[in-house]
Amino acid sequence: MTVVNRQVVLRNRPRGVAQAVDFEIVAGTSADPGEGEVMVRNAFLSVEPAMRGWIADTGNYSTPVPIGSVMRSLAVGHIVASRHPDWTVGDAVTGWFGWQEFATVGTDAIVRRVEEADLPLSLSLGVLGINGVTAYLALTKIGVPQAGETVLVSTAAGSVGSTVGQIAKHMGCRTIGIAGGPEKVRTCLDQFGYDAALDYHAPDFDAALAGLCSDGIDVYFDNTAGAISDAAMRHLAVGARIVVCGTASVSDWSKWPDGPRVERHLLVKRARMQGFVIFDHLADYAAAVSTLAGWIRDGRIHYREHRLIGLDACPDAIALLYRSENDGKLIVSL
Amino acid sequence: MTVVNRQVVLRNRPRGVAQAVDFEIVAGTSADPGEGEVMVRNAFLSVEPAMRGWIADTGNYSTPVPIGSVMRSLAVGHIVASRHPDWTVGDAVTGWFGWQEFATVGTDAIVRRVEEADLPLSLSLGVLGINGVTAYLALTKIGVPQAGETVLVSTAAGSVGSTVGQIAKHMGCRTIGIAGGPEKVRTCLDQFGYDAALDYHAPDFDAALAGLCSDGIDVYFDNTAGAISDAAMRHLAVGARIVVCGTASVSDWSKWPDGPRVERHLLVKRARMQGFVIFDHLADYAAAVSTLAGWIRDGRIHYREHRLIGLDACPDAIALLYRSENDGKLIVSL
Repeated sequence: MTVVNRQVVLRNRPRGVAQAVDFEIVAGTSADPGEGEVMVRNAFLSVEPAMRGWIADTGNYSTPVPIGSVMRSLAVGHIVASRHPDWTVGDAVTGWFGWQEFATVGTDAIVRRVEEADLPLSLSLGVLGINGVTAYLALTKIGVPQAGETVLVSTAAGSVGSTVGQIAKHMGCRTIGIAGGPEKVRTCLDQFGYDAALDYHAPDFDAALAGLCSDGIDVYFDNTAGAISDAAMRHLAVGARIVVCGTASVSDWSKWPDGPRVERHLLVKRARMQGFVIFDHLADYAAAVSTLAGWIRDGRIHYREHRLIGLDACPDAIALLYRSENDGKLIVSL
Repeated sequence: MTVVNRQVVLRNRPRGVAQAVDFEIVAGTSADPGEGEVMVRNAFLSVEPAMRGWIADTGNYSTPVPIGSVMRSLAVGHIVASRHPDWTVGDAVTGWFGWQEFATVGTDAIVRRVEEADLPLSLSLGVLGINGVTAYLALTKIGVPQAGETVLVSTAAGSVGSTVGQIAKHMGCRTIGIAGGPEKVRTCLDQFGYDAALDYHAPDFDAALAGLCSDGIDVYFDNTAGAISDAAMRHLAVGARIVVCGTASVSDWSKWPDGPRVERHLLVKRARMQGFVIFDHLADYAAAVSTLAGWIRDGRIHYREHRLIGLDACPDAIALLYRSENDGKLIVSL
């Protein structure tokens, strides 16, 4: 059952954000599954800010995608052939299937079987995928928000940030979102229930943040690093927790950029700043998905998706994300 | 019993490190204790790197010492007059008695009664004072070292750092000290039992640190911030803990100095960086002193003192500390 399989292959190792020219679409084949393997037909492909790091060959938490190989990505689809007793044709699965139409993989590439048949399949790449699970686990494990505290979120309308804001709100916190542009600010307020939201492009951003955070920020959920974080660090409460979840505002870490030193903030405020990578927490993944699915069903968590159509949209997709042109979790629909 | 009382008074609010000219010695008086108060004759006065922060009027964890008032400090001495039933003439006490010969204070200024009659009184300002207690609590609560891990300590021969290194060693860790100059490096190795020690002035410091930390730093106990910390951050192990205990290498935080951003280090290494201020942990103080005193008696913890003689040594003492001219915990003997 060898099938023609269009694939998005990494051509060059970019410095900074990968552009369309760094990829090439090739017509390959997907071989029959060997013993213990399955073949998945992808329905949706994920696009993540973290892909920049997966491509970079500087220090990261995963080995870089090799030049000439299919771009690493999460995807969701259905099993179309199986040589593993636990997996059946027709099963919906999400996992490391790559930017391609078909993936023949060992079952260790499967992150989970998608059980939520009542919810859209694509949610497995967003609010029921690493974005939502990251939001939930990083917020509760590192941020540890307490009712009545102030929780500040950067990229507050994004797929991670929007979930963080909503969970924190349900935990009884006051939530402040930071987003780029008046439309995203409006989305934060209207759709994600933030108590306040700020446009970091606005000339009075620093002053507005200071005004909103006069009693101090208890939890800063940081998806950006850079100037936004510098502004946030000036308003920490004593005992603040900073969740370092992403560094989206810094496009090139191949040389460490300079910024205001944080040591004195951390010392004076007895604050804690800690990095979170979802891959350390896979044991908690299924339970987190189950919790989040419940909150989606009862209307406590809202989400937005931004769908690109067809594999041809992949090469520019990471760059599109870093141009902030998406409105919600960015996925490619096949 | 009004006594003549020489006092060291803050004259100017310096930017950066306070110099001798920022203080004045005046002949005041110490009044009889009022109801509930005691009069202490100071025997030893403490000099701390943190005094820079106590004087500064920029963000800190304590209100700045007012111009014209006695310099805030810890001291140790004996009660010479008491109008409080729990405190008796002759009691040895340590507390917030200031840079002066006599202190008439409420008993809330007393940190503790000195019970270790078999050990030198001055230890209450160093290894049995906030330096030793800070070392013990910050290392165990934030650093949480595990046997077999690598613990890196800056200002490794200093009063906090030397205690950190020895405790970590007793906990089964591999200890690496960073100190300024070959003599302090020698002290680290010979007196404080570090497995390795590096001179940060040495031209090959970065390479030597990289060589020693090729398997990663599990705990970095940071007393300096600045370039030394920048070097350490490049060699974190996954899951590293950075204890931000002091920022001695940066003499002026009135404008936050720039340095390499840490967010990506913390994210990629899932590391935790957290500030420690002893005043949050006073409930654990007595137990920590008791533990440390036991370790001193059985020879597991060594210490060094650098004594200046007489109140006239106080005005230059903070500057002397920042010039790194002391060899051990800096105290003034009256």
